[in-house]
Amino acid sequence: MPRFRLHLAYDGTAFHGWQRQDPPGQEPQRTVQGSLEQALAVVFGALVRTQGASRTDAGVHAKDQVVAFSAESRIPIDRLAAAINARLPDDMQVLSAHAAPDGFDPSIHCASKGYRYRIRPAAGRTSPVPLFDRHFVFHTFHALDLDAMQQAAGAFEGTHDFLAVTCADHGRESTIRTVNTCRVARVGAHDLAIDVAGPGFLYNMVRIIAGTLVEVGRGRVPPGLVPDILASLDRGRAGPTLPAHGLTLEWTHLGERWRRG
Amino acid sequence: MPRFRLHLAYDGTAFHGWQRQDPPGQEPQRTVQGSLEQALAVVFGALVRTQGASRTDAGVHAKDQVVAFSAESRIPIDRLAAAINARLPDDMQVLSAHAAPDGFDPSIHCASKGYRYRIRPAAGRTSPVPLFDRHFVFHTFHALDLDAMQQAAGAFEGTHDFLAVTCADHGRESTIRTVNTCRVARVGAHDLAIDVAGPGFLYNMVRIIAGTLVEVGRGRVPPGLVPDILASLDRGRAGPTLPAHGLTLEWTHLGERWRRG
Repeated sequence: MPRFRLHLAYDGTAFHGWQRQDPPGQEPQRTVQGSLEQALAVVFGALVRTQGASRTDAGVHAKDQVVAFSAESRIPIDRLAAAINARLPDDMQVLSAHAAPDGFDPSIHCASKGYRYRIRPAAGRTSPVPLFDRHFVFHTFHALDLDAMQQAAGAFEGTHDFLAVTCADHGRESTIRTVNTCRVARVGAHDLAIDVAGPGFLYNMVRIIAGTLVEVGRGRVPPGLVPDILASLDRGRAGPTLPAHGLTLEWTHLGERWRRG
Repeated sequence: MPRFRLHLAYDGTAFHGWQRQDPPGQEPQRTVQGSLEQALAVVFGALVRTQGASRTDAGVHAKDQVVAFSAESRIPIDRLAAAINARLPDDMQVLSAHAAPDGFDPSIHCASKGYRYRIRPAAGRTSPVPLFDRHFVFHTFHALDLDAMQQAAGAFEGTHDFLAVTCADHGRESTIRTVNTCRVARVGAHDLAIDVAGPGFLYNMVRIIAGTLVEVGRGRVPPGLVPDILASLDRGRAGPTLPAHGLTLEWTHLGERWRRG
């Protein structure tokens, strides 16, 4: 059966995360994958199962989630995105649709992904609580020291055991991952952004890295201590898990082989 | 009793407009004024009635609505905004609070107000349907000719009878108003903004002006015909009332006298 690749964006606010959830005997939760598969069932007139690059949590947004599925399609590929979008709710949209090679699975074949965690710190009287972007920016009443956060961020780069910055039920055999970049920058008039990129992350890993950098920004953890926290493999020494709504999956890169149709 | 002035911002998406609505024997509708007065009742421990500069419709947003009320207050003026914000839902916020002169009524004493209507036109394949800003931008699948819209916009400036661009139940004795500026500009990567400013507007007037300029942008109305449409006093000749969600009250200017405490 022909295989397809979609690039998908969504406002995660009203979804219970990416992963389809239909617990037996209960109302199915509204999820991104579930809503997408409902639309695909109408477009193709058949049950279609999808695989996503990233299992984003409830409240997490995506500007470029990559999704694969197989279907018999009579729709020209250049009209497929519009055909699916016509069936999707207004808080998600297909950005583009492509033919994909057999065997393509975005949960395995992504070369890297970039996440951004956005924070509105206090800055005297001039820092407004987010209103129009309140579902996309984490607000804190603490002032944050950007320099200190920038000094600390590099400690997360490289290949490490990231056990200290995932939650106990991470559900993976190995907690060793590679972070290609971890940087903190000022964005817009009021906000800080923590940009973390790599081939794959543990459960809650980016939100706990962000929480640890906020502890540094508040002056509660010296920047030089972050390598020790990471090496301790002790979740209790890292910062809190920041709320989901500040996190966005910004981009997904595929390996060369999987970009071909 | 001391009088106060608030500058208020809100995301109009989940409100039935500004004006308090408690129809007898029915559930009160969720409105901006109603939600604000609920918060003020808690803060001051008394019923507080408010007057707003602009009766924004359901779905219309505000970045600077001006509100007045009278109350006995023991809260220092520099802490009043925070005290009220602590009681407000997260889709509205007080930007600042000030002492106001006796008799101040923002529905009368505003020198001018600025509205922006934001539009996402089609532009080949590069124009995305708004996703993260879908509650703030009106999307059309038509391409729009910015030059033609800019030529036409000036026709709405000046003092005119605006009967052709208000709805039948405008509820005002006179339909003569003054528009200080009416301009169209490109904003952001994809959008057009229609900026309309003046001391006061008729019901739906900005949304119908925007709808008429979209007809010009689509090439259905020549720019030179807009003065005739306005002079005809015929609502049927103007464009459609565009949806509320594209409209934002951007700013409110008070006369010098009313800016004093």
